[in-house]
Amino acid sequence: MLSEALQGKKLSKAEYKKRVPKLRASLLRAQESLREEEFPLLILVSGADGAGKGSTVNLLNEWLDPRYVRTRAFKRPNEYDQLRPPFWRFWKALPAKGTTAIFIGSWYSEPIFQFMNGHIDNDQFMAELQLINEFERSLVDNGIVLLKYWLHMSKKDQEKRLEKLVTDPDNRWRVSGEDWHQLEVYEQFTEVAELTLQSTQAYNNPWQVVDGGNKRYRDVAIGESILTTLDDCVSQHSSKTQTANPVDLAPIVSGQSLADVNLNQQLSKEVYKNELKLLQAKLGKLSRQALKENRGSVIVMEGWDAAGKGGLIRRITPGLDARSFQVIPIAAPTDVENAHHYLWRFWLHVPQGGNVTIFDRSWYGRVLVERIEEFTPESLWKKGYREINEFEQHLTDHGITVVKFWVHIDADEQLRRFKERETISHKQYKITEEDYRNRNQWKKYESAVNEMVARTSTGNAPWHLIAGNDKYFARVQALRIYCEQLEKSLNASW
Amino acid sequence: MLSEALQGKKLSKAEYKKRVPKLRASLLRAQESLREEEFPLLILVSGADGAGKGSTVNLLNEWLDPRYVRTRAFKRPNEYDQLRPPFWRFWKALPAKGTTAIFIGSWYSEPIFQFMNGHIDNDQFMAELQLINEFERSLVDNGIVLLKYWLHMSKKDQEKRLEKLVTDPDNRWRVSGEDWHQLEVYEQFTEVAELTLQSTQAYNNPWQVVDGGNKRYRDVAIGESILTTLDDCVSQHSSKTQTANPVDLAPIVSGQSLADVNLNQQLSKEVYKNELKLLQAKLGKLSRQALKENRGSVIVMEGWDAAGKGGLIRRITPGLDARSFQVIPIAAPTDVENAHHYLWRFWLHVPQGGNVTIFDRSWYGRVLVERIEEFTPESLWKKGYREINEFEQHLTDHGITVVKFWVHIDADEQLRRFKERETISHKQYKITEEDYRNRNQWKKYESAVNEMVARTSTGNAPWHLIAGNDKYFARVQALRIYCEQLEKSLNASW
Repeated sequence: MLSEALQGKKLSKAEYKKRVPKLRASLLRAQESLREEEFPLLILVSGADGAGKGSTVNLLNEWLDPRYVRTRAFKRPNEYDQLRPPFWRFWKALPAKGTTAIFIGSWYSEPIFQFMNGHIDNDQFMAELQLINEFERSLVDNGIVLLKYWLHMSKKDQEKRLEKLVTDPDNRWRVSGEDWHQLEVYEQFTEVAELTLQSTQAYNNPWQVVDGGNKRYRDVAIGESILTTLDDCVSQHSSKTQTANPVDLAPIVSGQSLADVNLNQQLSKEVYKNELKLLQAKLGKLSRQALKENRGSVIVMEGWDAAGKGGLIRRITPGLDARSFQVIPIAAPTDVENAHHYLWRFWLHVPQGGNVTIFDRSWYGRVLVERIEEFTPESLWKKGYREINEFEQHLTDHGITVVKFWVHIDADEQLRRFKERETISHKQYKITEEDYRNRNQWKKYESAVNEMVARTSTGNAPWHLIAGNDKYFARVQALRIYCEQLEKSLNASW
Repeated sequence: MLSEALQGKKLSKAEYKKRVPKLRASLLRAQESLREEEFPLLILVSGADGAGKGSTVNLLNEWLDPRYVRTRAFKRPNEYDQLRPPFWRFWKALPAKGTTAIFIGSWYSEPIFQFMNGHIDNDQFMAELQLINEFERSLVDNGIVLLKYWLHMSKKDQEKRLEKLVTDPDNRWRVSGEDWHQLEVYEQFTEVAELTLQSTQAYNNPWQVVDGGNKRYRDVAIGESILTTLDDCVSQHSSKTQTANPVDLAPIVSGQSLADVNLNQQLSKEVYKNELKLLQAKLGKLSRQALKENRGSVIVMEGWDAAGKGGLIRRITPGLDARSFQVIPIAAPTDVENAHHYLWRFWLHVPQGGNVTIFDRSWYGRVLVERIEEFTPESLWKKGYREINEFEQHLTDHGITVVKFWVHIDADEQLRRFKERETISHKQYKITEEDYRNRNQWKKYESAVNEMVARTSTGNAPWHLIAGNDKYFARVQALRIYCEQLEKSLNASW
């Protein structure tokens, strides 16, 4: 792919002057349409050092309306970045609907650097590229227009460029030892780049390789390519020019079912009080150790309305230090959240270091309420299973313990609790008509929960179905499971 | 204040057991009301090490519903924090309406540390406390319920606590050399604390000093104090129990007026093209130097509708490296922004290090559109002048160059441009009925702009009124002013 791009294409000054004004006007117009149609546009500018990434990005900022463009230069992850999974900083920076983000340096940079310098072997490198493919597939499937440019340059052009710079007193400072090193490893770098591009060449977001050797040719080529893509998207009122991938359902990995939960299990108040005290003390010790070892936790609390999720959370938090946990209640997304990929708002709350995030409801809304209320088309929520598994894999790969609870009660118990709440003055606010409406969908929810558990109860992040008819039993069971999972992670050698 | 708090008050176990269950239930109920009434609540837990800050905060998390509480422990600012003004990290963490934030360590910690260790002298320390007073006044005036607890402890209790810990094999690890040092400097610390409390004892958000020596007494005292405050707020449907401060208008500091702007100034296309090129090149050099010196810029672009703000921004950005600037267009606030202090969303975009943020419209909306459309009561927008001056002072104190432009045109020129835009297909979207509606308020806006300039054209962040009838002239004038201001800041020895 790379060598084919080096055809020494040029553009004369006259031709450049002729084409650019029209191109600029068209780009501005296309950008306005992008805002109206509310597509998020993400442009990656990658390639060899010295091939013109910086000046390309400056030019795009000049040609586009900079008010709706955010440019981000990603350097090697700093100490702060390293407290979270590697993709966290990219998720955070994803463009909202109607806006454009330009990244110099991206999720490609670090794997290539690591591989070039022998810190990871070929298998690990291919695994990193696989993560990238999953990530980009999920972006494109969820409506982001992703454009990937790779600026390439012949060795001769590289050499000429450096020599021109060092002989110019005004520009000599631009040349560093790293530049000469890059020239020395030109062949190796080109080989790794070739492998990278071929392995991440998805049919709906292909790489576009541009010869960086001629500035005028490069600028116009990229500008026109952006214009073509935007025009296509706008004329189809859809970002689907980048044809969405077919649904590839995550496989069934668990045979658990709500029907199998024994809801008769219970504990006496005395046993409960005793156990609770012991388990909270144990959690206290484990969570201190987890902080020391930088072992974060993500706890997912899902379950029927009135299943007792809030009470359960309040029995877990006393075992944690208030300075190291946060509870995130998930309601309908805000307008800013709605303008992003549905997983964006959850990524923002991934705990740093050894901290704990408890989600009171979670990303599983994608395959529960969004499915049943038909907020999201079937082709999209069905992809959710796989996307969610991949998200959780990022967490556990980073050493985060992911604990997922579904607190189960039966329909009679739920009704009893609704009625009870209506008689307790300060709990009345908890019961709304919507709660009764949801009850009518019980069967639908039941099968959605079962499918969710079947497809997302992975080895690294299994589901735990909690018998919730007896609150005492549920609390002790959940605390015990969290302690066990945390303990296992702390003993694990990793 | 401190010694008076040490009356050795205690609470028996029996009394504690009697009072706590009722207190907990009441706190939960009060918290629900807080959510309904949509107050943001901010609790500072400060005081001597070992006086029980950590365990108090853990307890509050146990007593309150942790889903609506965020606890933040602020340690000494790290490298990342230091890229921005000191208050940036506190602004970011302010609670949204209906939620509670608990801070251990706060804006008090660092000045006290610096002063205790002789890094700042008495005058500097008092200046820091003055900044704190301004900040807290602005929070309270804008509806945040601020509760400040100082946990104090007698030297004897401190000593006993440490000795008890070191003789206990399970808890010995908790005691560090720092703890013994704290005991040695007990008198000095108490003196500094006393000075701090007295200097920041605003009548509407007073300190509450609690004897940390007896855990049960301390817990119940704080719990009951929170409850009383919440109940007061809720019963008055307003956070104004903390009586808002009277309006203290920022003084008039500038005699500039829109009427004085000579709108006949213009440039020929030839001169314009030439000047633009020279100034952009100059800005290129200056902005590279600013990046090296970590000298950030904030550019405020205000002006009449159709004054040419966007075009002006597009003439500035080519002089900047796309990796180091962002343009933030300011529209109506999102729902999350609306749930915060009006300056919150601007603080989030304060540039780091030597970067540049260009605001296309800004916080001046507070004293322009919010005033004229009566979105904000007079008593609040009038406070805006002072609050804005204080905000900009934080920026310039951190070494950020603040450049403020009002692009001025007359009403005839505006009408001509509206009509012109309506005939250009890709600019039609820019003209709405609202624009015509705003025209009818021209006189009102004019006097609001004049008052704004008069009260906020401070020495550190002056306003520049740009003659905008001729776009060429306006662009060259603004670029020149930015270059001059930047150059001055770079030459300044600081």
